[in-house]
Amino acid sequence: MTVMPFHLQSIALFSKLAEESFASLLQCSKKVFYKKGHIFLKTHDIAQFFFYVCEGWVKLFKETKEGDEIIIDVLTNTHYFGESFLFEENKEHYNAQAIEDLEIIMIPLASLKSLIAKDRSLALNFLQSTLAKQQTAHLEIERLSSQNAFQRVACFILRLAATNQEKKAVVLRFPYDKTLLASRLGMRPETFSRALSKLHQHYGVEVKNDVIHVNNIDALIRLVCQQCSQTYPCKDK
Amino acid sequence: MTVMPFHLQSIALFSKLAEESFASLLQCSKKVFYKKGHIFLKTHDIAQFFFYVCEGWVKLFKETKEGDEIIIDVLTNTHYFGESFLFEENKEHYNAQAIEDLEIIMIPLASLKSLIAKDRSLALNFLQSTLAKQQTAHLEIERLSSQNAFQRVACFILRLAATNQEKKAVVLRFPYDKTLLASRLGMRPETFSRALSKLHQHYGVEVKNDVIHVNNIDALIRLVCQQCSQTYPCKDK
Repeated sequence: MTVMPFHLQSIALFSKLAEESFASLLQCSKKVFYKKGHIFLKTHDIAQFFFYVCEGWVKLFKETKEGDEIIIDVLTNTHYFGESFLFEENKEHYNAQAIEDLEIIMIPLASLKSLIAKDRSLALNFLQSTLAKQQTAHLEIERLSSQNAFQRVACFILRLAATNQEKKAVVLRFPYDKTLLASRLGMRPETFSRALSKLHQHYGVEVKNDVIHVNNIDALIRLVCQQCSQTYPCKDK
Repeated sequence: MTVMPFHLQSIALFSKLAEESFASLLQCSKKVFYKKGHIFLKTHDIAQFFFYVCEGWVKLFKETKEGDEIIIDVLTNTHYFGESFLFEENKEHYNAQAIEDLEIIMIPLASLKSLIAKDRSLALNFLQSTLAKQQTAHLEIERLSSQNAFQRVACFILRLAATNQEKKAVVLRFPYDKTLLASRLGMRPETFSRALSKLHQHYGVEVKNDVIHVNNIDALIRLVCQQCSQTYPCKDK
């Protein structure tokens, strides 16, 4: 773990803070660097920190009593976690592992809680941001409840493509390991592979390593979005 | 729609309000009654209200472009919804239908937002409550990602039984229609029926209409909870 200098000002969550709150926050925060593979948070640790991802990728995961891994989330730049136990003493509900080299800001929950109680802007910022995260979670529940595995893979690719909506054909890149992505989408690696094969055979989607060639976005949209309540391009990524 | 007298004091979310805020809240809120079956909120309506369920059941649902129904949530006493667009003007993302006779408090979002901005206790209450809702959503994502349909049905029954954890055998009741429940658990009615048959044949769970006889809770716990990161009894219902 290496502690590094950093700027809190650029973080939207803290953008409207009173000067005094900002100084307190800066004093209690630290930016740390974890090497790829490092597990820096474990289930049953006392929940003590709020984490804000500056750079890199982090995997939040649980283990079943049988030892299987359940992926809770995969996060990158500007995402944060650890806020669940801001108002209650509790133990962490998941493990956190750097899946790429990771720069992350850690803020003690106790300090953050006391700042939120004092600074109205911070409380409102936090509430607004939590409501937005809640919406994203509800969209994920909707997809997991209503889409089959094949549709979930196609939907993920469409959301990757959503920033290139002008084009019929796009080249994309899986943001992280495909085995991890399969688990994140609630399926086994072999189901994920079958979905990719089907996308290749019937919809002209070619995958080589982590590069995805989509030759006809419209065909994918017809396949997935007709069976969804959202309209392409989706807001959440 | 019938407007009725009501008491906001008993709602935990509003329990620490300053007297002045409380008076404002009371002035802008109304309690209404909807008959079973009534759809009182529609996708694409401008989001205008926060809803708090006093009595009855309400179904939040979307429709796909193909006309299929996607269940977002099924809510009852003390649950609330509609807060997603507290900080942004937007259109409703779902429909809301009374699935039993319903008593519900409606509070204009604009009034609630202005009260939250003024009253720190309300802002903190709201943040705490939203974080708790977020945890519930994450548990649901975990279950949908990691459990098969059969395990999800067994898990739902175990959560119904969780208040009777002293007993080996319990009699429970499905809280609402089984077709709706199947959809809520992310499966088709026929998959749900097959899960119930399997639970009957192998785990001594008998279902007659909406009554469930569980003869051996421990067998169900062994079936489901070994493959989960939670420990029975689960906190969320």
